[in-house]
Amino acid sequence: MAARQLVADSSMRISDLGGETALIKLISDKYGAAGAGELALGIGDDAALIRAGDSLLVVTADLLIEGTHFRMDINAPYLLGYKSAAVNISDIAAMGGTPTYSFISIGLPDIEVGIVEAIYEGMHDVSAKYGSVIAGGDTVASGAGIVINVTQLGTVEPGLVARRDGAKPGDAIMVTNTIGDSRAGLELLLRFGLGEAKRASEACVLRHLKPEPRVSEGRAAVVTGRIRSMMDLSDGLAADLRKLCEASRVGARVIADALPISEDLYIAASRLDADPVKLAAGGGEDYELLLTCDPKDAPAIAKAISSTGSTARVIGEIVEGDSVTLALASDEEEPIGGSWEHF
Amino acid sequence: MAARQLVADSSMRISDLGGETALIKLISDKYGAAGAGELALGIGDDAALIRAGDSLLVVTADLLIEGTHFRMDINAPYLLGYKSAAVNISDIAAMGGTPTYSFISIGLPDIEVGIVEAIYEGMHDVSAKYGSVIAGGDTVASGAGIVINVTQLGTVEPGLVARRDGAKPGDAIMVTNTIGDSRAGLELLLRFGLGEAKRASEACVLRHLKPEPRVSEGRAAVVTGRIRSMMDLSDGLAADLRKLCEASRVGARVIADALPISEDLYIAASRLDADPVKLAAGGGEDYELLLTCDPKDAPAIAKAISSTGSTARVIGEIVEGDSVTLALASDEEEPIGGSWEHF
Repeated sequence: MAARQLVADSSMRISDLGGETALIKLISDKYGAAGAGELALGIGDDAALIRAGDSLLVVTADLLIEGTHFRMDINAPYLLGYKSAAVNISDIAAMGGTPTYSFISIGLPDIEVGIVEAIYEGMHDVSAKYGSVIAGGDTVASGAGIVINVTQLGTVEPGLVARRDGAKPGDAIMVTNTIGDSRAGLELLLRFGLGEAKRASEACVLRHLKPEPRVSEGRAAVVTGRIRSMMDLSDGLAADLRKLCEASRVGARVIADALPISEDLYIAASRLDADPVKLAAGGGEDYELLLTCDPKDAPAIAKAISSTGSTARVIGEIVEGDSVTLALASDEEEPIGGSWEHF
Repeated sequence: MAARQLVADSSMRISDLGGETALIKLISDKYGAAGAGELALGIGDDAALIRAGDSLLVVTADLLIEGTHFRMDINAPYLLGYKSAAVNISDIAAMGGTPTYSFISIGLPDIEVGIVEAIYEGMHDVSAKYGSVIAGGDTVASGAGIVINVTQLGTVEPGLVARRDGAKPGDAIMVTNTIGDSRAGLELLLRFGLGEAKRASEACVLRHLKPEPRVSEGRAAVVTGRIRSMMDLSDGLAADLRKLCEASRVGARVIADALPISEDLYIAASRLDADPVKLAAGGGEDYELLLTCDPKDAPAIAKAISSTGSTARVIGEIVEGDSVTLALASDEEEPIGGSWEHF
């Protein structure tokens, strides 16, 4: 609504409009397909859904630009490739789907062929690990650093698909495994460089550079038939939970003490002189699953997810209204929901 | 084969390897899916084919990077959007398919919102014109100029799909409409800038900036059931015919006098002091269809295509061997097949 009014002045810059989120809203309002014909779900969720015979085709895309989304000095080509494909597979997992095929577009400066091979090796390995195949794409020269776009396809049964707009007041909010590790890994990398960051916490650095998409966890969750809403954590719990709440027209209350914080994060946070709860709640690039369900179903869902080797725990509840808050041990409640904006 | 040996030295740069074409061959040999399971056709044609119930899902992607693939000073945002989507729809047309959905990833510097809206308006308009819907994608910040990746989906009947590997010696080679206009338009733009180039030949400039994908022409061709091979002309007749011949393990002989050259191209070529035949044969970004068929079927195919308002004519024949030549009026034959390489 705000965006629509503001854009009467289209000489305004993206940053004045409110950054990526406001721009995406503007574009999807004006040009996005709402979901008609074969298109079951358009712009706004982790992935789009297209009816394809008895099943749904799940499609998602991510664009990564050197200097904006990654830096080669604190990365390795293999890991860059691995992560580029992993984050898209994660979007398929977030819908309860199974990844099938990917289409990789890559823009390359005139770099060493071995670097390109390592990038593809990483993409190939994570694809193979999660059952997906690189089926095509585009390879072009770039005068602007390395550019990678992955479009990932997947499939899901119409009766099992998980969306972010199904949360209801009273739902339990659950997350898989631990959160915040990736953000701590990034902070270590930015502050100390690759070598020293790894010595400080190799686990957190790897959570940032080599995320594992939660495909079998997502499948285990949806086949229980008890998921009300689900998404993956890419922008951090605070920002992503707010998105889930906006899509579902509800609010949320997260209990700080319930956040799953790893030993590694405590160690890294101490090295960074940072608050582990803030890293976990603010986070970013966790690629864990965030889901909601009737509280009585939470144990069954946690059990189903534990069969994959991962864990899942309740971290709060969905409430009426639109406030998303974090309840601290001190009995204070603070609003959360700041997102990472690159503009 | 050459690429495989060369890459023993992976410290070699892409330009030393032989540019984009050699790199794509290397990558697809090592990491590409050949076509197994549901994947009917992998890397190497205009688009990949995936079995989806009774039909085939057609998927193609193109990555465009500002400064490398387009310049905003000789373009307009609306036309940039239009062309970005059009060239992908053209790849669907090249398989005989119907475009359905696209996924747009766009990287943006902090530019005016009106520019972004105009880009999407162009993508939306060409998509709607050819029956496709923008169903999702990714919108991110870019520190490296404007970056656009379009992944276009389409559908085609298994019995009608056109590939580039079906040409046989003796086949007639046909192209739709006229070729070379786009290249002349580009040369005018580069030499004179947008305003003066348009005054010299608005038709050629528009062929370059606002190509129309030949969707109904492709459908008309394949429903005749008489197409042996087909692709779209993106890199120019010389380069693309060579690709078709390599895929089909044949050669080709093109008759210079038979090339469809427009009045506009003659005028533009004269202004550029260039040879219109060279512009037509060397070309680039024509987005016309190149196809082969039994010579006796050529009239029926031309007639089917003419029902769409376009024309199609025979420009040469497929021969045994691997030479691709242009027969000039002077009775000389010269080899053709140089491609545009950005590295």
